Amino acid sequence: MDLLVVGSVAFDDIQTPFGQAKRALGGSASYFSLAASFFARPSLVAVVGDDFTQTNLRVLLAHGVDVSGLQRAKGKTFAWGGKYSFDLNNRQTLFTRLGVFENFSPKLPRTHKSANYLFLGNIHPRLQLDVLHQMTKPKLVGLDTMNFWMDNAPRELKIVLKLVDLFVINDGEARQFTKQHNLVKAARQILGLMGHKKRTQPTLIVKQGEYGLLMFRQNQTFHLPGFPIEDVIDPTGAGDSFAGGLMGYLAKTNDHGWENLKRACVAGSALASFCVEKLGTQRLQQIKPTHIKRRLADFKRLTHFEA
Amino acid sequence: MDLLVVGSVAFDDIQTPFGQAKRALGGSASYFSLAASFFARPSLVAVVGDDFTQTNLRVLLAHGVDVSGLQRAKGKTFAWGGKYSFDLNNRQTLFTRLGVFENFSPKLPRTHKSANYLFLGNIHPRLQLDVLHQMTKPKLVGLDTMNFWMDNAPRELKIVLKLVDLFVINDGEARQFTKQHNLVKAARQILGLMGHKKRTQPTLIVKQGEYGLLMFRQNQTFHLPGFPIEDVIDPTGAGDSFAGGLMGYLAKTNDHGWENLKRACVAGSALASFCVEKLGTQRLQQIKPTHIKRRLADFKRLTHFEA
Repeated sequence: MDLLVVGSVAFDDIQTPFGQAKRALGGSASYFSLAASFFARPSLVAVVGDDFTQTNLRVLLAHGVDVSGLQRAKGKTFAWGGKYSFDLNNRQTLFTRLGVFENFSPKLPRTHKSANYLFLGNIHPRLQLDVLHQMTKPKLVGLDTMNFWMDNAPRELKIVLKLVDLFVINDGEARQFTKQHNLVKAARQILGLMGHKKRTQPTLIVKQGEYGLLMFRQNQTFHLPGFPIEDVIDPTGAGDSFAGGLMGYLAKTNDHGWENLKRACVAGSALASFCVEKLGTQRLQQIKPTHIKRRLADFKRLTHFEA
Repeated sequence: MDLLVVGSVAFDDIQTPFGQAKRALGGSASYFSLAASFFARPSLVAVVGDDFTQTNLRVLLAHGVDVSGLQRAKGKTFAWGGKYSFDLNNRQTLFTRLGVFENFSPKLPRTHKSANYLFLGNIHPRLQLDVLHQMTKPKLVGLDTMNFWMDNAPRELKIVLKLVDLFVINDGEARQFTKQHNLVKAARQILGLMGHKKRTQPTLIVKQGEYGLLMFRQNQTFHLPGFPIEDVIDPTGAGDSFAGGLMGYLAKTNDHGWENLKRACVAGSALASFCVEKLGTQRLQQIKPTHIKRRLADFKRLTHFEA
């Protein structure tokens, strides 16, 4: 197995100035897998309730996502409702019903434990650790988290950080985590906490929303802008789509060198830029490899200059 | 004459968390000229009072700035005081004493009227128009402005826009000016208002602070990040240094093609990134061509990837 993601599968209610969706397939593992499926065959480990239907599943299956690790539990699937401001810059959470996600305890099927690439979605660091302990010998482990865990489980989060290779975080979170306003300094500080000795060099990706991202390795920095989209419809899932494209590309190419990491960032950003063009996962479900190829070329035109 | 800038020369009182300066040489035309001097021999047109000394002038002269168009008037030189927040993201204006700048009426010496490259610093659009009417046949005209003029002289500003080729504006100002949140749409709208028919294709540069810039021409977009600086000391003058580097590079190369405009943006951003490393114009006074060369190479490393 090449690529495994552990995270959430959810039902999203989304309100934007441009439309709304009810009980749309959502959750970090869903967006991640759909985005990753353009480069690799991702497997997901998550939990759903008995209200999760075959129709919901079909969206993932149609993209070749391996759902054999999707746990079913008695109760309701994690449900989330959010409403965006007129400029999409602010999001108000209308409700969060954890349902079966509240007692989620990721159990990896035997086949999943040997995955080469693992992405730990934004769940409790204790669960992330638990997943790590089940793995036999991953080549590269990626990590997402959020400010809530920085405040409420800082000790466990720091243990996880020591065991991962690639950490994806928002700029605001990076600042909060390090109490350091300057991003370059914050990045250095976080890199110092990271990295499994026997694997690849620690890499930190700081997401800057519409402005793109900064990627850091010791003595190396890369910036990629967000793709300028004229009609952003729904930012939900953009971060998870980025991570999916990124990890999918790495799993496909099996190269953790700096140059290839840059390409993986471009792949991830391309998927994120598609994601926001329609409500929920709609656009991810439509795109074709040629669309991605074209956007990668557009990214190059957008950023390159001859010195 | 190659490059002319019309703007302000001022005394700045600057307070930052990292130090302070009193009566330091400031103003848009000062920063612009110092930055431009690394590529061209800029001439400035501005006004100072009788408190402006030979020592102040020497900073400009040392960089080969032509000050023959610097008007002297009875009274005090424009003085400004500002204080930055701990993270440098907010600036509080402590005082603004216009002094002789209040009655500034730019008079171009005969030699200045034939300049090939003209940059209209942030002054009343009526004065900008007045300068434009004094010019014989500039090859390229750049423009800066601010939200104050958008609100208080929108009619005159729109007339100026029709006569310029290169407009440099902040993202917040672009949104305010067009009442359009999406930057791509805002840019299209502004480009539609611009451009002297007989000269080059209209170009819009939207500055995004620490995030860098987006440059737009019809059907073309370019993004350049801000250079990640670990120790930002003082953001004063960064925008004017950018404009100076940009216009200086264009005046030197005399090429308004898209590829060269990108290079000009890199040159401008390099100068802006130096500017913020020390208080006031201190860093601009120290740097050498080799520093600039190195930073241009660093910009390439920061942004380029192999597809």
